[in-house]
Amino acid sequence: MSQQLAVGIDIGGTNTVFGIVDRRGNILYDGKMSTKAHGDITSFLNELKERLDVLIDKVGGKDNIRGIGVGAPNGNYYTGTIDYAPNLRWRGIIPLANLLQDYFDVPAVLTNDANAAAIGEMTYGAARGMKDFITITLGTGVGSGIVANGQLIYGHDGFAGELGHCIVIPGGRVHAGTGMRGSLESYASATGVMLTALEFMDSRPEQDSMLRHTPRELVDSKVIFEAAKQGDPLAIEVYEYTGMVLGAALANFVMFSSPEAIVLFGGLTKAGDMIMRPVRHHMEINLLPIFQNKVKLVFSELKESDAAILGASALAWEMKTDQKAETPQP
Amino acid sequence: MSQQLAVGIDIGGTNTVFGIVDRRGNILYDGKMSTKAHGDITSFLNELKERLDVLIDKVGGKDNIRGIGVGAPNGNYYTGTIDYAPNLRWRGIIPLANLLQDYFDVPAVLTNDANAAAIGEMTYGAARGMKDFITITLGTGVGSGIVANGQLIYGHDGFAGELGHCIVIPGGRVHAGTGMRGSLESYASATGVMLTALEFMDSRPEQDSMLRHTPRELVDSKVIFEAAKQGDPLAIEVYEYTGMVLGAALANFVMFSSPEAIVLFGGLTKAGDMIMRPVRHHMEINLLPIFQNKVKLVFSELKESDAAILGASALAWEMKTDQKAETPQP
Repeated sequence: MSQQLAVGIDIGGTNTVFGIVDRRGNILYDGKMSTKAHGDITSFLNELKERLDVLIDKVGGKDNIRGIGVGAPNGNYYTGTIDYAPNLRWRGIIPLANLLQDYFDVPAVLTNDANAAAIGEMTYGAARGMKDFITITLGTGVGSGIVANGQLIYGHDGFAGELGHCIVIPGGRVHAGTGMRGSLESYASATGVMLTALEFMDSRPEQDSMLRHTPRELVDSKVIFEAAKQGDPLAIEVYEYTGMVLGAALANFVMFSSPEAIVLFGGLTKAGDMIMRPVRHHMEINLLPIFQNKVKLVFSELKESDAAILGASALAWEMKTDQKAETPQP
Repeated sequence: MSQQLAVGIDIGGTNTVFGIVDRRGNILYDGKMSTKAHGDITSFLNELKERLDVLIDKVGGKDNIRGIGVGAPNGNYYTGTIDYAPNLRWRGIIPLANLLQDYFDVPAVLTNDANAAAIGEMTYGAARGMKDFITITLGTGVGSGIVANGQLIYGHDGFAGELGHCIVIPGGRVHAGTGMRGSLESYASATGVMLTALEFMDSRPEQDSMLRHTPRELVDSKVIFEAAKQGDPLAIEVYEYTGMVLGAALANFVMFSSPEAIVLFGGLTKAGDMIMRPVRHHMEINLLPIFQNKVKLVFSELKESDAAILGASALAWEMKTDQKAETPQP
């Protein structure tokens, strides 16, 4: 058994992507299927088995596969279960790692997608060789994975690293999903950027902006990005404000775990310097001097289309060779 | 060489305490000397050597000592140095771990006092057997030590765990030492409690309070504690407010590392339920549901007079037996 390959599976609310990856992070074969078409987990697993077995056969069979790594919403590393994921149709607690082992006769390990992304950056990406770093995904939501002493921080229950839900502005904007006020995700996500733009437009009726030429219900993060790129002052200020909130939050995270780097990933990073400049500035001015000008702020080096599979597959390299889904206990 | 004993040294700005401790946390012999009487480190070490050698002789000589653990302000675990400690008269970078090894011919390891306290709680105290917890010292300042996956989080540079300097109220109260606005230490320390009381007294001239019968410059955390204990509404509200700020901060820390427990220590904990009830309430309401009603909020189990020596000595048990101050590298 050479076991020089790993399977990565990323389960999203809409689609699931999967692939077979070598140790250098090359995706040899990959595929995609619908998640939401399957109302129950058995039906989902039957389609996955059928599609993935074809790829496994192409690489010489399961004896060449070291393990299966899965990134899934509310995936719990310790128990190998998906627990009450709000974006999935499968209700309750799904013992996915055990089910995958039964279906494929290969060890399987599971975590949430943000943690998988962190392991992916450490194995193949911008955090190679680092023992202390944080990854932040700035997409529809704000996800995070924290590595300290070379290990992912799962916490006592497997749920550590929910930095998007940290309160950064007490009494601030209400989060539609959680009902919490002033959490980072309410500002530094695609939705947050949109809400900031709408607030600026409403509170400054005198300020003209290209955004006013778009119907209000169509103002989204893409429209704002295009306007900012063309020099629209209000849109640029949306990024300044977002960067201020995010930068101050990152400073708090630095004072927690003193990472060598913070790796940013996701849609918002497309704004490049428009967001990074204020983020860096506000991170630095909120840091104690002993932390200043030390932390690398970098973008992910993983291609966005590959990152989900790579991150999930990287979990399999971290597995002990005799690990079964039953063994990782808190 | 049985090496069943450890030396613990806690260096404070005013005094240094030291002791010899067994594996169960019994302090066999201890002593105390002035720190601030010594303008240079050589003079300090000469007195320490003279005093500590007497104790080491009592336990049968240095062959019975596994190592020396030191808690010191700005103590860096990786380099074994005290770096620019503002409260010490010794300037610059002091290679204390190496110096102690030279003076005593025993391995020495160093960290800051808050990290030492965390190791002490894990070894002898309220966090025995836990792999994921946070200790918060609520004293003159706010210190913290974070343990995840059974290891102290030092960060890439040895300075992790400065939770007292996290910004919890953006644009809030200025911290006299750092100049930062709205950091946790500006609210949840002895000074913070005093400032809150003075603010309440100034902003509510109509509200009577026992605190008004004390000259303004003498209103300190002890006076406030006594007034609250006797039912003074303004003083009680000071604790309510302090607990609100601290509780919300703890919620953010929980979403970072999902600890099994938060261990509180230091002067402010003497207020007992007057502070703990609001802390717990505001921590819980600021947590995502998956974290609620899970985290134990407990007081330290170490006697305050012993805790500094115990925490420092516990570092020595964590040392690898062949460890020298040169070896721990980031």
